[in-house]
Amino acid sequence: VEAEAPSRRWSVQAQKSVQYEIALIDGLLERGHPLLGPSPRPGPARRFVIVDEQVGRLYGGAIRDYFDRESVHCRIFPVAVSEKAKTMDQVSAIAHAVDSFGIDRYREPIVAIGGGVLLDLAGLAASLYRRGTPYIRVPTTLIGLVDAGVGVKTGVNHGLHKNRLGSYFAPCVALLDRRFLATLGTRHIANGLAEILKIGLIRDRRLFDLLDQHGQLLLSERLQGHSAVSDAVAIELLDRAITGMVDELRPNLWEQELDRLVDYGHSVSPTIEMLALPHLLHGEAVSIDMALFTAVAQRRGLLCAAEANQIFRTMHALQLPVWHPLLGRKVLARALAETVQHRGGRQRLPLPAGIGSGRFVNDVAEDELFMAAEELRDLRGPTCLAG
Amino acid sequence: VEAEAPSRRWSVQAQKSVQYEIALIDGLLERGHPLLGPSPRPGPARRFVIVDEQVGRLYGGAIRDYFDRESVHCRIFPVAVSEKAKTMDQVSAIAHAVDSFGIDRYREPIVAIGGGVLLDLAGLAASLYRRGTPYIRVPTTLIGLVDAGVGVKTGVNHGLHKNRLGSYFAPCVALLDRRFLATLGTRHIANGLAEILKIGLIRDRRLFDLLDQHGQLLLSERLQGHSAVSDAVAIELLDRAITGMVDELRPNLWEQELDRLVDYGHSVSPTIEMLALPHLLHGEAVSIDMALFTAVAQRRGLLCAAEANQIFRTMHALQLPVWHPLLGRKVLARALAETVQHRGGRQRLPLPAGIGSGRFVNDVAEDELFMAAEELRDLRGPTCLAG
Repeated sequence: VEAEAPSRRWSVQAQKSVQYEIALIDGLLERGHPLLGPSPRPGPARRFVIVDEQVGRLYGGAIRDYFDRESVHCRIFPVAVSEKAKTMDQVSAIAHAVDSFGIDRYREPIVAIGGGVLLDLAGLAASLYRRGTPYIRVPTTLIGLVDAGVGVKTGVNHGLHKNRLGSYFAPCVALLDRRFLATLGTRHIANGLAEILKIGLIRDRRLFDLLDQHGQLLLSERLQGHSAVSDAVAIELLDRAITGMVDELRPNLWEQELDRLVDYGHSVSPTIEMLALPHLLHGEAVSIDMALFTAVAQRRGLLCAAEANQIFRTMHALQLPVWHPLLGRKVLARALAETVQHRGGRQRLPLPAGIGSGRFVNDVAEDELFMAAEELRDLRGPTCLAG
Repeated sequence: VEAEAPSRRWSVQAQKSVQYEIALIDGLLERGHPLLGPSPRPGPARRFVIVDEQVGRLYGGAIRDYFDRESVHCRIFPVAVSEKAKTMDQVSAIAHAVDSFGIDRYREPIVAIGGGVLLDLAGLAASLYRRGTPYIRVPTTLIGLVDAGVGVKTGVNHGLHKNRLGSYFAPCVALLDRRFLATLGTRHIANGLAEILKIGLIRDRRLFDLLDQHGQLLLSERLQGHSAVSDAVAIELLDRAITGMVDELRPNLWEQELDRLVDYGHSVSPTIEMLALPHLLHGEAVSIDMALFTAVAQRRGLLCAAEANQIFRTMHALQLPVWHPLLGRKVLARALAETVQHRGGRQRLPLPAGIGSGRFVNDVAEDELFMAAEELRDLRGPTCLAG
């Protein structure tokens, strides 16, 4: 008989509070923001500003002018961004640059200005630097404004896996300025409208209707509101999209609840997007995924044919794809398996149930998914097969 | 006059609960633990087990036997550990290996078995993998048992900076087994006793007395308790050291309070340790730092000469250094500046105020530090100058 060995237990319990603001501000680089600079500390204020290369080219002068006016000594650090370059090595390079500039992390938040990839990279660097350094998110793309920019996720790709390494790390503030969208290409506007469409489809019929009725105008005007009407539409669109996103995020900031409506459009798309690199933008892969599960929802009677067609027509008007040659049986099976693994062993697939609300299903067969994909291929016509 | 631009604000507030257990278990690989395996899920249980190379050599067979007995399919992944190899590249390699094994992160916690460097690396990998994958800490060194193993910090070195990148990420459980210490070299036992001495000096006079009275026996028996008396001493030592550490950590898990008593011994040592690589173990650098601020405390009248000498004698008996040739004026100034930057612009230097309690000071001059260092050099004698 084994003698009872000494044993002793301790328990550690703690609560961490997270709080951050999101502010929609037109003309940020003219109007400024207290957290952006100047610093309240005595002595010269300093800011380390991470920008993506394109933002550096287009807005580097305006960013520098802003900090000059505020008497803030800034270092602008441009980062090459692409899904291929979204790596831990880039995070490491950012950390080296922060080291060489030297910041007081309690008074000098890192500023990140750029698209989704830049915000993910800079957010992860800030999250890791000294185990957490405050940072400010300034998204410059539409997808950044309504998605990456308002949440707390950071990440890099690893191997063939999208965002396989990352963290949940809230910014001190997210500053959203649609004026940056003026220099964005149409395809990147469509890319962001895909995530807005997602929010519309799963929880906000009015938001869907705005896209359905004004999609082409929003695309062509880049949400700049050239008329009073289109301005009101652009503002309501952003307001509803961000409100919807924040309402879904707030009770589930760390994604402990695995049934997430905002995962609509994100079930098979992570695999498709990585396999298609660099040909699909994130929102395009999301659109293909939303179309696929719209077809599934229609097959299950959750959407009638008219609703499904209205969704496909809206995607078409927004110049978003509804199908991709990668949607074969084998890739779909693999993508579904990876999602099940990621979601704790269940599918947890959000489907639109009528336009503007969603529900979860856990019993989609591989065959059902493949049949739905085939319907989408027919919808696009055989020319798409060339990819 | 600028027209009022549209603006809108959202606020996100959330609370994250963290909870984990620490269990002291003699003979873990014989007695097992429910979280270590087998998995409660139907089907074969699986565990990805990260070990340091030395632990793999010494305990690989015993670890494999344990999982075999529990019918757990395990992959043992050995990692080379040293301060020089404590890099993000190693974290990346661990993530690749987890990918290739494939785990269900909701049911198959990663298991990390090794010293402080291994636990820091594996903890960071777990923290980043899919933005957080549960893991179990099994420290195999004394410093791991009383320090790295019981807290929530993870990290890698970056550039010349110790733990410059990392996270706070609690394990699901920390399983502490002093039986691993039986194969540890004396120098590594002393390395851990340095962190225990720290807890004694700043908050537990009885713990200091145990080290003062039984230091050499603890060193030579490696806390294995070859007699009833030395066993009781070893167990009380671990119990008090862990209790002290946990009591200091619990209210300040994310280090939001910057006045930290457990930073005693960690004020100039991060710089010294990195500059001296690979010649000083962490606990040795901590001991040098504790000696330095013991001398400062004595100069300020917080310790009498008898107390300071008793501290130095105990360090000596534990085979811990009290001085290092790097303690020159320039390095001390730089180390202090880095610590001030790390601690939000103030020194926040914990000093022993009598043996067993601490207090913070913020006004130590570079000269005062250098004079204290010179006193320590004299204490060790000129032979130390060779380094």
